[in-house]
Amino acid sequence: MVQTRVLSASHAKAPFEKTTIERRELRPHDILIDIKFSGICHSDIHSAYDEWGGGIFPMVPGHEIAGIVEAVGSDVTKFAVGDRVGVGCFVDSCGECEYCQRGDEQYCTKGVVQTYNSREYDGTPTYGGYSQKIVVTDRFVVSIPDKLEMDVASPLLCAGITTYSPLKHWNIGPGKKVAVIGVGGLGHLALQFARALGAEVTALSRSASKKDEALELGAHHYYSTEEADTFKELAGQFDLILNTVSANLNVDAYLSLLRVDGTLVNVGAPAEADQYHVFSLIMGRRSIAGSLVGGIAETQEMLDFAAEHGIAPKIEVIHAHQVDEAYERVLKSDVRYRFVIDIATLD
Amino acid sequence: MVQTRVLSASHAKAPFEKTTIERRELRPHDILIDIKFSGICHSDIHSAYDEWGGGIFPMVPGHEIAGIVEAVGSDVTKFAVGDRVGVGCFVDSCGECEYCQRGDEQYCTKGVVQTYNSREYDGTPTYGGYSQKIVVTDRFVVSIPDKLEMDVASPLLCAGITTYSPLKHWNIGPGKKVAVIGVGGLGHLALQFARALGAEVTALSRSASKKDEALELGAHHYYSTEEADTFKELAGQFDLILNTVSANLNVDAYLSLLRVDGTLVNVGAPAEADQYHVFSLIMGRRSIAGSLVGGIAETQEMLDFAAEHGIAPKIEVIHAHQVDEAYERVLKSDVRYRFVIDIATLD
Repeated sequence: MVQTRVLSASHAKAPFEKTTIERRELRPHDILIDIKFSGICHSDIHSAYDEWGGGIFPMVPGHEIAGIVEAVGSDVTKFAVGDRVGVGCFVDSCGECEYCQRGDEQYCTKGVVQTYNSREYDGTPTYGGYSQKIVVTDRFVVSIPDKLEMDVASPLLCAGITTYSPLKHWNIGPGKKVAVIGVGGLGHLALQFARALGAEVTALSRSASKKDEALELGAHHYYSTEEADTFKELAGQFDLILNTVSANLNVDAYLSLLRVDGTLVNVGAPAEADQYHVFSLIMGRRSIAGSLVGGIAETQEMLDFAAEHGIAPKIEVIHAHQVDEAYERVLKSDVRYRFVIDIATLD
Repeated sequence: MVQTRVLSASHAKAPFEKTTIERRELRPHDILIDIKFSGICHSDIHSAYDEWGGGIFPMVPGHEIAGIVEAVGSDVTKFAVGDRVGVGCFVDSCGECEYCQRGDEQYCTKGVVQTYNSREYDGTPTYGGYSQKIVVTDRFVVSIPDKLEMDVASPLLCAGITTYSPLKHWNIGPGKKVAVIGVGGLGHLALQFARALGAEVTALSRSASKKDEALELGAHHYYSTEEADTFKELAGQFDLILNTVSANLNVDAYLSLLRVDGTLVNVGAPAEADQYHVFSLIMGRRSIAGSLVGGIAETQEMLDFAAEHGIAPKIEVIHAHQVDEAYERVLKSDVRYRFVIDIATLD
């Protein structure tokens, strides 16, 4: 067993404490990773505050993990000691169902094992990336390209793939018009990916305050959704609207911005139900959809694509003792756009 | 001008009266049709009762029209006097927008001209198929194959294409599992089309009362949605659920029956909003969609497909003086499954 220091919450909403846990002995396909950076995702907060229920405490969040391979199991061939690697939202899946077989591990019929606040198939709780070390089976480890810095790579493992995957799934490329709702942790990456994929990109944000940044990130156009004319002006324009915001929307109003056969894809989920009128869908064969992160092969593809196109999250690197404060600031939307914990400060 | 006898409602919810109206002189591309049968669609009732507002009265409903060509304009080449022809929900569109150009006239950006309760682009109100004769531009006239009887052909022009189009659009065929919600005017055709397209077909209906008929129509399986175990048993099974019912659904419950990447397509629209939780979509990249009738070329394809596969609506042929009574019976779901007016009784 390997002992490792972690940031742990003893119960829902408890402040984080530095404690020590054990990672399992390396099995033949396991990789021991020396974590360098771990991003803070909004879902870390939902989990640590137990807002979705069923939280497993003590909890060590973190599913945006960038580090260096420290040791490998006897059957590992794809990775070697010293490799720059990442781990995202999942650390195991059945590997046999049709979804696993086609690279959609996130939809595994047996249920994917999440990186934290979840259980291995043998019942062992999982502990995430707010930690110095982690042991992960090689199938769930990806390579971080040399061109990507370790700190900016970490948020790509969740926020990056969550926005890249639906853009690819719905065939976004040249000639397509995409709108991104929300310029935040997810949205600021979605703008970069959509632009790099060749689409015409519109940022939709409540106020006008993020206009300059959105245009700098790759948006061709920026509209405030509080302006009365926005919904009139943009009616029937978009092939895809990617909603990165977890608040309830006026779904009918956003559907009216879609072209025929257009899709409103949600990657954030409010706790309360959304409402829509079926007519909003019927009158243009429109769809409302959702998308969950992305598969492992696609995550590797996304990292390679980001490296190739110079796509990177804007981050604020923090010390381990600042996580509680960072959570407060995320809740106030006071971050542009992602906090990343420097794990060297966790000891 | 051609005078024609019609069934007309003078105002919302007024009983139908036999009156006379004029159809326009034939323009070069017009066809004068001697109507033989006209189906009664649920939307005729919504319109005649002005439930959607904006009704144009006096109103002559009817957009499931089967008849014989009586005369053609000077430039008509596709049809000749004596041809068996049909007219569905639309009688004109701009013809130039991208949707018209690709055969999706129903989504015309200028706005399609509906067969009744609508206005031609010059402002003239349109009057539908509860009528002895109608004049329609040739682009919106389809051929009724010899193998289809005229009376059963008429409901295919709306109910048929409304269910066929989404099955084709979402690539239903061998290896796909389809559920149809509702065994009624639309649903009983959807079951036949889905079966003939090669899918494994499940009928979902409130009670068990329509089981025998649904199986006879082509369903492989039948489930009552009032049975507690139905939603458990069918979880995660379907590629497509075609909802033919206009009542509000428990959308989350139906979404749980979809496979990953499955779609719940609505062809009926309740007046009140539906509700869903975004998680129901995200957890399987599922979609909620809507579909409106179908294009003209696709309507011809549907009629040919129906003729080839022996698909036909079950109908009850009524006399012109029975329309008010038929409306009452439709509202009580007391029809299996479509009323068709024998226009020979309208004089």
